[in-house]
Amino acid sequence: MWTIVVSETLGTMMLTLLGCSVAANVRLRNTFGHQGGWLLVSLGWGLGIFVGVYVAFASGAHLNPAVTFGILVDGAPSFAPGIPVTPLNTLAYLVGEFLGAFVGAVLCFLAYRLHFEHSEVGADKLAVFATAPRYRAYAWNVVTEAIATFVLVYVVLVFGRTPSGLGPLAVALVVVGIGVCLGGPTGFAINPARDLGPRFAHAVLPIKGKGESDWPYAWVPVVAPLVGGLVAGLLARAAS
Amino acid sequence: MWTIVVSETLGTMMLTLLGCSVAANVRLRNTFGHQGGWLLVSLGWGLGIFVGVYVAFASGAHLNPAVTFGILVDGAPSFAPGIPVTPLNTLAYLVGEFLGAFVGAVLCFLAYRLHFEHSEVGADKLAVFATAPRYRAYAWNVVTEAIATFVLVYVVLVFGRTPSGLGPLAVALVVVGIGVCLGGPTGFAINPARDLGPRFAHAVLPIKGKGESDWPYAWVPVVAPLVGGLVAGLLARAAS
Amino acid sequence: MWTIVVSETLGTMMLTLLGCSVAANVRLRNTFGHQGGWLLVSLGWGLGIFVGVYVAFASGAHLNPAVTFGILVDGAPSFAPGIPVTPLNTLAYLVGEFLGAFVGAVLCFLAYRLHFEHSEVGADKLAVFATAPRYRAYAWNVVTEAIATFVLVYVVLVFGRTPSGLGPLAVALVVVGIGVCLGGPTGFAINPARDLGPRFAHAVLPIKGKGESDWPYAWVPVVAPLVGGLVAGLLARAAS
Amino acid sequence: MWTIVVSETLGTMMLTLLGCSVAANVRLRNTFGHQGGWLLVSLGWGLGIFVGVYVAFASGAHLNPAVTFGILVDGAPSFAPGIPVTPLNTLAYLVGEFLGAFVGAVLCFLAYRLHFEHSEVGADKLAVFATAPRYRAYAWNVVTEAIATFVLVYVVLVFGRTPSGLGPLAVALVVVGIGVCLGGPTGFAINPARDLGPRFAHAVLPIKGKGESDWPYAWVPVVAPLVGGLVAGLLARAAS
Repeated sequence: MWTIVVSETLGTMMLTLLGCSVAANVRLRNTFGHQGGWLLVSLGWGLGIFVGVYVAFASGAHLNPAVTFGILVDGAPSFAPGIPVTPLNTLAYLVGEFLGAFVGAVLCFLAYRLHFEHSEVGADKLAVFATAPRYRAYAWNVVTEAIATFVLVYVVLVFGRTPSGLGPLAVALVVVGIGVCLGGPTGFAINPARDLGPRFAHAVLPIKGKGESDWPYAWVPVVAPLVGGLVAGLLARAAS
Repeated sequence: MWTIVVSETLGTMMLTLLGCSVAANVRLRNTFGHQGGWLLVSLGWGLGIFVGVYVAFASGAHLNPAVTFGILVDGAPSFAPGIPVTPLNTLAYLVGEFLGAFVGAVLCFLAYRLHFEHSEVGADKLAVFATAPRYRAYAWNVVTEAIATFVLVYVVLVFGRTPSGLGPLAVALVVVGIGVCLGGPTGFAINPARDLGPRFAHAVLPIKGKGESDWPYAWVPVVAPLVGGLVAGLLARAAS
Repeated sequence: MWTIVVSETLGTMMLTLLGCSVAANVRLRNTFGHQGGWLLVSLGWGLGIFVGVYVAFASGAHLNPAVTFGILVDGAPSFAPGIPVTPLNTLAYLVGEFLGAFVGAVLCFLAYRLHFEHSEVGADKLAVFATAPRYRAYAWNVVTEAIATFVLVYVVLVFGRTPSGLGPLAVALVVVGIGVCLGGPTGFAINPARDLGPRFAHAVLPIKGKGESDWPYAWVPVVAPLVGGLVAGLLARAAS
Repeated sequence: MWTIVVSETLGTMMLTLLGCSVAANVRLRNTFGHQGGWLLVSLGWGLGIFVGVYVAFASGAHLNPAVTFGILVDGAPSFAPGIPVTPLNTLAYLVGEFLGAFVGAVLCFLAYRLHFEHSEVGADKLAVFATAPRYRAYAWNVVTEAIATFVLVYVVLVFGRTPSGLGPLAVALVVVGIGVCLGGPTGFAINPARDLGPRFAHAVLPIKGKGESDWPYAWVPVVAPLVGGLVAGLLARAAS
């Protein structure tokens, strides 16, 4: 169980360190990647997953409560080779995922410290940490995030039944694809930990002129990915 | 036969869900990927194929009537390991491909619902679903689509005789390459199902201010890919 | 010997069909990829190599006289598994490479026919087929092309002594890297066939308002890659 | 020991030849990749690593003193299969890394000679060779570079304990990810040799109007990567 917590914490830390940092690179003032475009952002999150999967290899690299949840629903006997599905192990995954997501966001803040100081728009600073929809309508925002997470979790569940040889690269490319294609309306959280952990970091870190943490939206990127993971788990169970 | 229909439906659904969505991300108003460029579009369709091939692994992941047709012409004994070439199986592929392409387009509409509502140009909305040429001249549009599909189907047929180890990534990269290189004049349908299924979705979905579905052009991305698949199948047969 | 000619012709045809087409997509008027940037161009040529290597697998996929020449200099006993180094086989490679490069350029012209007609700048039309330096100074243009080809041929020779598992993707990525990094001054021909074959196509095809074929520069992308291949072959021989 | 020096010199030469060249392509005047954006730069350095790893395969392809240092701290018995950790071998790696980085930068200067001559801004010419921070504050610049190098070295150490099959591509993608995500504030040196070798080349080469070599900053991209490598080595040792 200790292995799970350490492994998932380090892996999810790498994920949000890289992912939040690409958002910082694109949104904050005077960076080398300023206004670098949506492909840069999607690629950054995908490569964050790539690194995270290597780092959390020992625990199967969930890095995402929606994946943990999808595996539960799918009815698989184990979370990863040698790690049986038990309540305590489930808890260990969740602790690692949220803790890692928080720590990674803090490291991102340290790496981009000078740019946080010199940027002026509060919304740009929040965008480094948490997602926000382009048009705010909670029901449709949930639909978008649920569909995007369904794609992610279903493919991850299918990987286990498919020869591929690509390992971490396959998951990374799926995340790039989801970002590029389905990230347009809500910025693709597709992961409760990825949004809630950094949002909490935004709330507690001493960021100059940071503004509100937009807590009214915070439930969407938590609940919608779980809905997507649920549907994916049910479908994978039916299709296997 | 049921396996074929389910597998191809799910796979082609993933393909057009992601592919139509990247078009929505680039063309519709106020998305994160608005005017994200042609590389983003080509990458989105390529990653749609990537996901689709994993999801439809059980049936060999044709996802495209031109591929099914090319295999027929090539004279291979089976569509995929354990699936003999028979009229009924051919029908099963076609049903899955067109059905999946339609369902994926509907899911794309749901994911980008708010952006369809806030966009004003009808041509941008149609471009999410169906291809259109930059210069309309049917004969030359057919030439472009036939050449592009020839590349796709010939390489897919060659894969079966080549060690590669890349699996779904190889097909995805070929599609990205076709988009990047040969997509300039007609927007690379290279797949009758990918164009006709979503065009039908455009015709029946309640999209605000959607305009015409451009049925006069609809035969081009159906016929031309079959011509390309035919030439590819004949050449592969001759070269083997 | 017949196998070599057919295989290299088809493979190099795919290479210049895709590569010239990405140039057409970026340079000609009103395409979907118009002014799509240098990354698009480099990626297009890299994916052209990717497809070409699969298609010409049977002959080891040289696709480039500089590679054939580098293998000669390296002193390897065979051009590919089962194909001994002989004068006649060398000729077969060269015939296939130049013939395929010409045919691919013709297909590109057909695919972009309408855009050639609607474009007005002759230099843009020539740029679809042949490379041209940003600053014309033959000695330095030769240096740039020789260094870039040295990288290509040396890495290709090293591949044979290195476990990789990536196959065609590895060569494709090296070409993308050479384009992205070393393509800035001369547009990276790095291949005598890739430049001379399409330049000849430009000279003979009925392209409206095509202007001169810039023959005074044509020797640079032929000689310089051979110099680069020579140095790479000598170094690989010394290092092995 | 001779093998190590030759292998690391050639590999690091390829790395800085390609990496410095992508900077030249983006920063110098009138190149094909002028102002090609941050993704192009990150990809160029990543593909430089890709090529360098193949070329320096015989010595395990450190290409970076921070990697050599991280392996020392990690307590591994060998630098690469068959190369034990000894003081003399450590020296051989360092000699090869710095020498190769210098030679690669000289080759880049030759390849872009005409563009160096026609460019006017001294800072653009220095940026081809050495990194510089967007906001100069040494302590925070060290933090950024140390975090970025920690990610690189930790993942490289983890690779040795993880099945992957991607080989050189995996390291290349990690470098692209670090550039895209963490390169925003300081331009990601993450490698003492990559910065000091080319900076020395800038100091000694006859570059027209080159300006100062910014030696006051030169210690940051040397010391910070070693700090990052130290932390990565300690963490990898604790986690194994």
